[in-house]
Order: sequence, then structure tokens, then C-alpha cells
Amino acid sequence: MDEIARIAMIARVLAPGRGEAERVEGIEVAIGDDAAVLLAPGGGHGAARPARPARMVWTIDEQVEGVHFRRELATWRDVGWRSFQAAASDVAAMGAKAWCALSALVLPDSVDDAALEEIVSGQADAATAVGARIVGGNLSRGSGFSIATTLLGVCDRAVTRAGAKPGDGLWMAGQVGLAACGLRALESGRAIGPDIMPAVDAWRRPVALVNVGLAMAGVASAAVDVSDGLARDVGSLAEASGVKAALDASELLSDPALVKSAAAMGLEALDLALYGGEDYALIAASPVPIAGFRRIGGIEAGSGLVLRTRAGDSSVLVRGFDHFGK
Amino acid sequence: MDEIARIAMIARVLAPGRGEAERVEGIEVAIGDDAAVLLAPGGGHGAARPARPARMVWTIDEQVEGVHFRRELATWRDVGWRSFQAAASDVAAMGAKAWCALSALVLPDSVDDAALEEIVSGQADAATAVGARIVGGNLSRGSGFSIATTLLGVCDRAVTRAGAKPGDGLWMAGQVGLAACGLRALESGRAIGPDIMPAVDAWRRPVALVNVGLAMAGVASAAVDVSDGLARDVGSLAEASGVKAALDASELLSDPALVKSAAAMGLEALDLALYGGEDYALIAASPVPIAGFRRIGGIEAGSGLVLRTRAGDSSVLVRGFDHFGK
Repeated sequence: MDEIARIAMIARVLAPGRGEAERVEGIEVAIGDDAAVLLAPGGGHGAARPARPARMVWTIDEQVEGVHFRRELATWRDVGWRSFQAAASDVAAMGAKAWCALSALVLPDSVDDAALEEIVSGQADAATAVGARIVGGNLSRGSGFSIATTLLGVCDRAVTRAGAKPGDGLWMAGQVGLAACGLRALESGRAIGPDIMPAVDAWRRPVALVNVGLAMAGVASAAVDVSDGLARDVGSLAEASGVKAALDASELLSDPALVKSAAAMGLEALDLALYGGEDYALIAASPVPIAGFRRIGGIEAGSGLVLRTRAGDSSVLVRGFDHFGK
Repeated sequence: MDEIARIAMIARVLAPGRGEAERVEGIEVAIGDDAAVLLAPGGGHGAARPARPARMVWTIDEQVEGVHFRRELATWRDVGWRSFQAAASDVAAMGAKAWCALSALVLPDSVDDAALEEIVSGQADAATAVGARIVGGNLSRGSGFSIATTLLGVCDRAVTRAGAKPGDGLWMAGQVGLAACGLRALESGRAIGPDIMPAVDAWRRPVALVNVGLAMAGVASAAVDVSDGLARDVGSLAEASGVKAALDASELLSDPALVKSAAAMGLEALDLALYGGEDYALIAASPVPIAGFRRIGGIEAGSGLVLRTRAGDSSVLVRGFDHFGK
């Protein structure tokens, strides 16, 4: 099974049954979105709940050495920073304020005390940058290094992937394709010139757009963050909403930093924009503009994902980073 | 550094500074207890909070193949079950009701789809057993198999490790030493006879005492679960409370299942009781009895941990499972 099929299988196994649905209260969104959505247990869980309880969004992300990063391409502090921002981006994608986090580290012997302090410092820097605090965690020995980060956010209403409507615009905050270009540059071992430096920074030090995401509240009909590539993540929004998404190629190529770094690396900027992940841009569907977002396409009746170019439309292959794909 | 020193270093790096303390509200207990304690963001985070907001307790635990389990000693379903119960026990130790969980799996190629379904089924069984539901998670590829489980619980007031007072009794729910004896039996490869079977079951299928733990609310002055061994975990309670804990050896040897299985394996029952982990017993300090708990000692002025025997007192070495100790 590929990753999507595995997640569908897991959702089936974990679906309420045998009476849990009745017993476990306060679950608004479970598996399948950027984060779970819970009703805050305000003043007595389940009982005397206020008319409009606060929502909590809750995510876990894990970064594994050799899969999500190679140690020689980033400092330990970068590794800590990146792992935290990856989780924070899921909270941003729900339109929630980042609140608290826990982190579970698996440490091989090769991670010494000084390295551990750098990793944790990177996590702390990232938490501070998004206004959150790390309040606990777990340490374990293991042969491979990994960081799992779980983050709680708070909002009045969470913006899920489902809800985009034909006629909505498709809006983006942040950049796409740059981090993938930066990773390719680091992997190539070449000298990093000024045209490529912004791309390398985008990969080493991504910033989850938590504060920008708050502007979606009450406006966006659906949202997703770009972690696995624009095509795949917008494709998942379209699928969850039961609509077609159309991306405007010229808008994707309007980022000078992407165009310059792609040219310096001899790569196709459009390919990077569609399939490069880990920039943590935010994508929202909305009938009206959103502060901090620019329009990159629109929502239509139908299904799937199309790319609008001056030459005409072409349907886009919804591929991206798949942990278990062949 | 050993594990305790590493956690102290991490707590120092993550301590509020640079203004976060002011910005991040609702944190009652951070690093250093069985779980973090948060004030539920009831009806408007921070603003119009009710006079007695609900508390949430929040933990993350990670089980790593080759460290916490060897695949040949347990079924995949056991592995899923055990990983969930380990996290649930932290919630039980705070006197909270288990609510929702997320799980992050790192899967090597050797874990096929059928194995994954068994693992998730074991997690789901365990969640149902403690009245919780798994509402999301993360899948990643990796060379080593691991499961990180993060669990939220709800309570009116969390029972922390700090707060035990001289004169309190030391009370225990559940058993100690049995799981360690069962693991030794499995590792020995010997045939499992009826005297050893309860010990093997204790290791393969531990049950977090979440419902029993609810009886501590409003009664216990401090509590901890036994994951790393009674001596180490009671030692941590004594240290956090600034008191001395005294264990009664005869009470620790009053469990016939432990005595029989230890004898069958040729092991010292007292040694297993003091230093064996992963049974997930609950230990509470309380001036009065607690339903479901039996007395195993008391709290006195002073510091450290002593063992009371008919022959006299002996101070107990506070050792136990240390991930990074030499």
C-alpha cells in the first residue's frame, strides 16, 4: 500500500465502534486533516459546556534522519528548528494559534550532550518564533535519530481541508519550490552563491506561517499547508472538498527568488513549485482576499487539479512526497 | 550525561525566557512530572475563563524496537497495545481521565501492511480499554521501528509527584516486578509454565490503571506510575516532594503471583519488585486509604528511599531503567 492507502486503512481500524463513539466526547475532526480538532473541556468536560466552546487543534509530526534530513546538510540547531516548524505548520493550516508542544527524541550514541543541547535550542528558538512553549517530552535511546513533535493550538473555529466551493479563489501565503531547490543545491555539494542562498535558507530555516494563518479565521472555506508539494497538498484540499482546483502557472512563476535559484541550479521553476515540499506555505480557498495571501488560482466545479497556462489547460499529476510509494 | 542530567539540561534550555512566559498562558506544570498540566482554554483562551477551569494532562511516550521491545518476544498486536498503555499510564498517574491520542509511527520496510494493521489494532484495543480514542497521527519511513504516542487526559486537579507530606501513607494499585520477570522468562527461551504465565502476560499486555487512578482525585497528595522500577519512581516522588519514602519489604513480597514466578525463574522477588519496570502500577501518597490501593509504606521527614525489613532499615539504591546511563 502507498501512504494514502495506509492512512485509509488506519482510519478504518480506528473508526469508532464497540461503543467508543458514545463514550469519547469532544472530537470534532479526527484522522484525515492537517490536525485533529477537539472541543476544549471548558469548566467540566462534556457537562456544563459554554455555548461556543473554544477549539483545540492537535498534530504530531516526526522527522527521521536519513528520510527528512541528512545530518551533513544541516546543523543540529537547524534540525531542531525544522522539526518544530513542520509541526507548527499543521497548526497554522487550521487557522489556530500555536500554544504548547511536547517532543519525543530518539537518540543514538552518536548524538552527544552538546549536539542534544543544540537540537533542543533549535526547537526552543522555533517555539518562541511561533509564540508557543515546549512543556515536556520523552527521551529514548535508539539506533536511528528522530524527533516527534506534538503541538496544540487554540482557535474558535478550525479551517479544515473540506469546505472549498466553486467560485472561491485559491490564495497562497509564503513561497513554494524554494526549499526543494535549496535541498538540491546542498546535496549537489556546490558552492552556494547569492542566487541560491534564499533557497538554502528556505530549506534550513523554514518558518510556519502561524500568525499569517490567523487571518484565515472567519474568511477561508478550506485550507492546507504545503509540506509534501503544492500539487499533492492542493489536490488533497480539492478531494476533501469535492471540487476542482485550478492553479495559474504565471502566478507560481512570479516569485523572483524561485526563478533565480531554479535558473542557477538548472532546474524547472514550475516543477519545483508544483512538486517541491517543506516550504510550509499556506493555501486557502476563499471568496474574498485574505490579508497576507496572494491569489494563485481558483476553485471550480468538478474534481482534480488543473494548471492554467497561456497555452491552455493541462491536468496536473497529483504526486508529491510519498513515504511508502514505489 | 545520564538521562536525569539530560532532562535537567533540556528543562534549562526550554525554561521561559525572552518574554514567552508572558505570552504563553495556561501552563500549570511543564517538564519534570509524568505529564504536563494545562488549563483548558474554556470559552476564549486566557480571557473569560471560568473560576475553576478544567485541567488537561498531556504526555508523550515512545517505544523503540530493540530498546523497549524485541520483535520476537511479542506479537505486533502486543507491540501496539503496550505502546499505548505506556502513555496511558502517565495520564493515570496524574489522576486524569484518558481522552484522545495521536500516534506517530516510524516504519521500516520489514513492517508490511498486515503487520501495520495488527499494530494499529493493538493500539485501538488499548485505547478502547482505557476509554480513549486515537484521533490522528503521522506515518514515516525509517530504518528502525518506533511508536510515539501522545495522550490528552482531563481532570479537575492533577496529582503531581510533588506534595507528599510526612505522615502520609504510601499506597499502591496494581503489581510490581511481574512484567520484568515475564520479560526475563521470554528472553530465556524456556517453556512458559502456569507459574510464569501471569508474569509473561503482565509484560505482553500491561494495563494502565486509568480508572483506578481517578480514585486519587481529592485524596492523594502526590502520585507516580511505575514505569522505570519502583525504587526509581518512588525515589522521584520523594525527591519532587522533598521527603523520605519508606517501603515495607513484607508488603512488596505479599503478591503470590510475583513470589511464584520469581521462584520459578530463580530470581529474587524483592529485587524484581524494586527494580523491575513496565508493570504500570500506581503509587500514591495519601493520609487516608484510597479505593483500589493497598499500603506499601509511608512518607517521613528527610530525603531518599529506605526499605523496612524485620532485620532493620536499609537505604535503597535508586536505580532503574536509564536510557543513557552507563
